[in-house]
Amino acid sequence: MSSPPHKLQKLAPYILHYWGGIPGRGEYVRLAFEYAGVSYTDSNDSAKLLKTLRSTSPSHFAPPMLELPNGKILSQTPAILNYLAPKLGLAGEKGNLLKNAVEDDDEREEAEFERSIVNQLVLTALDLCVEAHDSHHPIASSLYYEDQKQEALRRAEDFLKLRIPKYLAHFEETLRKNKVSHSHLVGKTTTTADLVLFHVVDGLLYAFPRRMGALDKGGKYKRVLKLHEKIMAEGGIKEYVESGRRRKFGVGLFRHYPELDGEDEDTIEPEKE
Amino acid sequence: MSSPPHKLQKLAPYILHYWGGIPGRGEYVRLAFEYAGVSYTDSNDSAKLLKTLRSTSPSHFAPPMLELPNGKILSQTPAILNYLAPKLGLAGEKGNLLKNAVEDDDEREEAEFERSIVNQLVLTALDLCVEAHDSHHPIASSLYYEDQKQEALRRAEDFLKLRIPKYLAHFEETLRKNKVSHSHLVGKTTTTADLVLFHVVDGLLYAFPRRMGALDKGGKYKRVLKLHEKIMAEGGIKEYVESGRRRKFGVGLFRHYPELDGEDEDTIEPEKE
Repeated sequence: MSSPPHKLQKLAPYILHYWGGIPGRGEYVRLAFEYAGVSYTDSNDSAKLLKTLRSTSPSHFAPPMLELPNGKILSQTPAILNYLAPKLGLAGEKGNLLKNAVEDDDEREEAEFERSIVNQLVLTALDLCVEAHDSHHPIASSLYYEDQKQEALRRAEDFLKLRIPKYLAHFEETLRKNKVSHSHLVGKTTTTADLVLFHVVDGLLYAFPRRMGALDKGGKYKRVLKLHEKIMAEGGIKEYVESGRRRKFGVGLFRHYPELDGEDEDTIEPEKE
Repeated sequence: MSSPPHKLQKLAPYILHYWGGIPGRGEYVRLAFEYAGVSYTDSNDSAKLLKTLRSTSPSHFAPPMLELPNGKILSQTPAILNYLAPKLGLAGEKGNLLKNAVEDDDEREEAEFERSIVNQLVLTALDLCVEAHDSHHPIASSLYYEDQKQEALRRAEDFLKLRIPKYLAHFEETLRKNKVSHSHLVGKTTTTADLVLFHVVDGLLYAFPRRMGALDKGGKYKRVLKLHEKIMAEGGIKEYVESGRRRKFGVGLFRHYPELDGEDEDTIEPEKE
């Protein structure tokens, strides 16, 4: 069962294989295609997915898997995004040159470096996503939340108090130091890093509204939150969100358990400093 | 305080900034240089490291950071390895072509894909490394092991029982399916994926000797364990290990706590199947 082709689609050059129902890690790949306006098919056929995972060489550990126009398959979200970035114009102005052959050595080096910096920022934003997941599943993905709730309460406390602010400060600093644009992580064009950060912030706002609200008060992370708003309204993403095709958060990576957001007790102080 | 230059070194084109004392994530970058025989300086100057983390644009979230010959800095282990791979001849036979400009579109696409597959496998092996770390620190990196030991016992049980076998099976399958070589993850040349898997397996053997011994008995993961032995004896790595420069495991990512390895109680059954 594949999802119906959407309006951007003419042919189906890329097929994204992912579980149905949740945004999950597949969403990071979807956002890249949606922003770029490049057609893709969103396949949620679990049986085909499991078969593909194991039948190809090399094997794939987990979805998302991207089936390329030539039938080859690539998995691991950061690997997919780094592969696609220059093709979709999301690797930075210089990084995007790598869509074609870059003959000049210095120019190619600059392009490879910018593409790598985008990759670096994508990886850090995805690390934050993993920590958000582990805040409700600190013991095992194979167990229900209810079976690790006590540990989750402890882990979420540290995540909210120390980790979220540390990551947000890192991205705020990166935006602040970008001399050509304070609303882009790299250069002055939207990259996969901006799109991934957008979705992670969106997930944190969904999962931890109380804590994110408290962190927002001092204006310490204003550029990060502004980037989130900006991407939400940008061409490609705006249409995607309004189309209703964008999957809602629920019981995936980002989950809203009020008790983990510190709503039950006021142990987490708002940022002072 | 920098570590003394080692025998491979003539100039110092690359500088690896990392914490002193532990192999850590810096080791994955060291192994790439050591295997390739390319000189690098291993800088453990904490003060300089912290300053560099924040003074550059973009900011870097954490070490390792690689300072390039041109002075630019890149962080995030998988981003560093993907950047270096074609330059060091560790991106697969086709992937390595990307060291230079590849004019033919089809050839460049094949090269980009192979480099991406290497990246994919690196990322999965590093995910296993993160889970190994979280088995002793399931609640917070900011707390001591002793302060999260109860939770660690629970997480390690799942990690040993389900996660290690799942990852090892994935890599075993990848080696088995490689038509041109059962001792390389991609093609028939050593890539960053082989080197990362080597170190992760080395870390697991150090941290969980009892469990890894039990898993070894059925021969289910023989190709993975053979790859580990092969890399240990390979040119570049052999000299590195014998030189004594390779840092020992201790209280870093991979830790040997007998109680987490199930030595106290025999709850974890050996593999049957």
